[in-house]
Amino acid sequence: MQLYLSLDPQSGVTLQAQIVAQMRALIATRRLPPGSPVPTTRELGRQLGVSRNTVSAAYDQLVSQGYLVTERTVGTFVCSTVPEEAMRPAAPPPAPHGGGLYTALDLPLPYTGRGLPGLHRPTPSGIEIDFVFGRSALQSFPEKTWRRILADRLGGAMERMSEYAHPAGIAELRQLIASHLGPARGIVCAAEQVLLVAGFQQGINLAAHLFVAPGATVVMEAPSYRGAAFVFESYGGRIVPVPVDAHGIDVGRLPEGRVKLVYVTPSHQFPTGATLPLHRRLALLEWAARAGAYLLEVDYDADFRYEGSPLPSLQSLDRNGCVIYLNSFSRSLGPGLRIGYMVVPRQLIRPALTIKSLMDNGLPWLEQAALTQFVRDGSWETHVRRLRHTYLLRRDALLDALRRDLPQVSVSGAEAGTHLYLTLPSGTIGAARLQAECHARGVGVYPLDDSPAWLCEHLDDPDRHLLLGYGHLNEAQIREGIARCAAALGGAGR
Amino acid sequence: MQLYLSLDPQSGVTLQAQIVAQMRALIATRRLPPGSPVPTTRELGRQLGVSRNTVSAAYDQLVSQGYLVTERTVGTFVCSTVPEEAMRPAAPPPAPHGGGLYTALDLPLPYTGRGLPGLHRPTPSGIEIDFVFGRSALQSFPEKTWRRILADRLGGAMERMSEYAHPAGIAELRQLIASHLGPARGIVCAAEQVLLVAGFQQGINLAAHLFVAPGATVVMEAPSYRGAAFVFESYGGRIVPVPVDAHGIDVGRLPEGRVKLVYVTPSHQFPTGATLPLHRRLALLEWAARAGAYLLEVDYDADFRYEGSPLPSLQSLDRNGCVIYLNSFSRSLGPGLRIGYMVVPRQLIRPALTIKSLMDNGLPWLEQAALTQFVRDGSWETHVRRLRHTYLLRRDALLDALRRDLPQVSVSGAEAGTHLYLTLPSGTIGAARLQAECHARGVGVYPLDDSPAWLCEHLDDPDRHLLLGYGHLNEAQIREGIARCAAALGGAGR
Repeated sequence: MQLYLSLDPQSGVTLQAQIVAQMRALIATRRLPPGSPVPTTRELGRQLGVSRNTVSAAYDQLVSQGYLVTERTVGTFVCSTVPEEAMRPAAPPPAPHGGGLYTALDLPLPYTGRGLPGLHRPTPSGIEIDFVFGRSALQSFPEKTWRRILADRLGGAMERMSEYAHPAGIAELRQLIASHLGPARGIVCAAEQVLLVAGFQQGINLAAHLFVAPGATVVMEAPSYRGAAFVFESYGGRIVPVPVDAHGIDVGRLPEGRVKLVYVTPSHQFPTGATLPLHRRLALLEWAARAGAYLLEVDYDADFRYEGSPLPSLQSLDRNGCVIYLNSFSRSLGPGLRIGYMVVPRQLIRPALTIKSLMDNGLPWLEQAALTQFVRDGSWETHVRRLRHTYLLRRDALLDALRRDLPQVSVSGAEAGTHLYLTLPSGTIGAARLQAECHARGVGVYPLDDSPAWLCEHLDDPDRHLLLGYGHLNEAQIREGIARCAAALGGAGR
Repeated sequence: MQLYLSLDPQSGVTLQAQIVAQMRALIATRRLPPGSPVPTTRELGRQLGVSRNTVSAAYDQLVSQGYLVTERTVGTFVCSTVPEEAMRPAAPPPAPHGGGLYTALDLPLPYTGRGLPGLHRPTPSGIEIDFVFGRSALQSFPEKTWRRILADRLGGAMERMSEYAHPAGIAELRQLIASHLGPARGIVCAAEQVLLVAGFQQGINLAAHLFVAPGATVVMEAPSYRGAAFVFESYGGRIVPVPVDAHGIDVGRLPEGRVKLVYVTPSHQFPTGATLPLHRRLALLEWAARAGAYLLEVDYDADFRYEGSPLPSLQSLDRNGCVIYLNSFSRSLGPGLRIGYMVVPRQLIRPALTIKSLMDNGLPWLEQAALTQFVRDGSWETHVRRLRHTYLLRRDALLDALRRDLPQVSVSGAEAGTHLYLTLPSGTIGAARLQAECHARGVGVYPLDDSPAWLCEHLDDPDRHLLLGYGHLNEAQIREGIARCAAALGGAGR
């Protein structure tokens, strides 16, 4: 460690005295905290350009004053009980300021937009069974296989880690994704159109940075995903909500006039779980051509579909090059991985790559390399199939439990994904009250306004809906959780 | 794999015929390319909700038509030679459009700002010794230690990978960084003020998103770092260049009036290598309070200082809470890691965290966890010390070679980092011509306008300067490279 000391040969004070004074100051202000090691005399001498003897003499003085202790053969450390006089207050550190001082100094207001409490949600105390949204099955991360693949990829990693990589990501992984999307989602694209991003959130941010200047109109489904709305707002976008019904976004209510971007989840609408029918997809594309809008198609549950085949993705129906397709490996490998991908129309390859490189110069190399191998050798495909089976069993357990214990509650969004959208009948307690009653029974359920859903005020009665995430819960937990939830609903009366 | 097929029971066409027609279309349009596997009949039957026999009959038909081949006990595949008639052109895919069509459709123009060819720079062919900027020594990535630590951290990774983590990063790593910064850089901060980011570029982007709205004034050193200038431009910032002299930014020429943000590299100015003296640091802080500006202090070479102690960082001198400190592990562990950190004043903790979560919901978990262990057990400190020694030897070899072979060239920035800033005397060829002459001799050297430097037009004669990166070259390569460079300069005449 190089110490933060600076000697002045012209000061008239000996170098030794300067070292002593400055190290005392470092210790007294706790920049060097009690018990921390200090450099060897040789190291510090070299750093300061003074003889080792000078440093030795200074250290001896500090030891005799009780600032340092030397343990033979181990090293020299700051004394854990520093003498009284050293504890006198040093120059006051910057106070933890509130707004006051800064208004006085007239510092610019930093971003005052809305935050994202959303997806990082540790389970609250008292909750034993937590139907929270956004958590994956533990098995979503293939620990053993990953260990083997990482060990494999680490050979030769020195070369790749010491350079900046291509900001769009590893070429082979982009090619593998392009090849996967053809048969799986009907998307015909070249590898150059595939851009790796650090998950959904970064993909949304990238699209926002490309299209949203202050005052730009962004259309969102209502309700929709909070993390996207706040991003658009952070760039000064004006959000125009378009209501969602049982069949997804109501294309008859799309706005007239110029729109820059539409955020849409056609396969499995978030949060309602609706599937957008083909005629609405075509109408949306026609409208986009008139409005001069790009469509950001977020296909977040594509890998976990339990019944029938998906409808054609917007991207596969697009003949005008106006669709940006976004997906992520977070759903299949866990959100801790932070790798997703976008498919952009050809004319956006260059601008999107520019923004990506300005954002962060590309993703970390090692886990990209591991993922490449995981997809290439077929492990990902096998992994997704197994995980889909696990989720299917959990979903069925949840649907059964709901039918048995809460037959009065209506359910949507069960065809895909790892959450259900519940609607409470009128005449029972509302969702917020149910949450409190369930909490008292150790179960976490989430009304829309305590979930990543947003623009919920456009629903008839926002307090009658709940989101239940189930991917991370086993069948026994699911059955027990729903039984307690039924007791909560029954016991609470009206 | 789930196939992109969709059956319509009401269509009047048998389900088997629908499967055949749609799979032929998938194959003909190469969505299912030759040789690729198709799902088993059981899998596809389950996906489509039809009997396995129906799928079997359809597959048999496709086999007899030459679209599929079945290999017993292995599976069914798309035939590698698909029949002639299938090769008729399908519906034309979207053409690779230029601007024309999109102007007609009036799609909004995406970001048209400047790109970042910068740091991802594969060595051009014909170059054997490449003094490119931004590449680290191979040893910068501790492959063996990392293998051990990753294996260690993978135990229990399933839990951490299946959840969203805190967007500011692993708490222990933030604490370790805070503890390191005290003795090393004189910075007293709490762990909450430390925010992990994906390297310098993301840190700059985060500050830009916080402070730069269209028309906002951003002060930059001239010359400075291109990757920062383009980020500020991408948010609509107006860049005001302030010239750099041999002692860094000329504080006497800071602008009057409101400034939002200043991008500054006081320890080792990029690209000139100048160190900002203490009185200029204090003057800059005073000016910032008057201008209502935040200072983004980029301390990119802090870990690799070869002579003397660093001057106090701006952050450590700041009494107004207006300095944002930015550093990265890219310099010590290689740019492939993509982990850096910011220290923000207390009033910015919340806004910065908000922007970080909107950007990407936080960094990947596994390598953060590995880095935590690497720093905690002292490996990082040891690693940096060793690497500093390697770089010191390389720097000395480069300085010796320059003194011997190119005594007419003046050198700055040698006190720290892994690059030198050269100035050619007047009367020799310029830097661009020298680059061409060196290239012909297999050596890469970089004039400012072919480097990540920017705003170079403010220098007296921009074509007399070169950047030489040396961290990734061994001493023999360095000596040979400079010898050839001298031959190039000598042979080229004037």
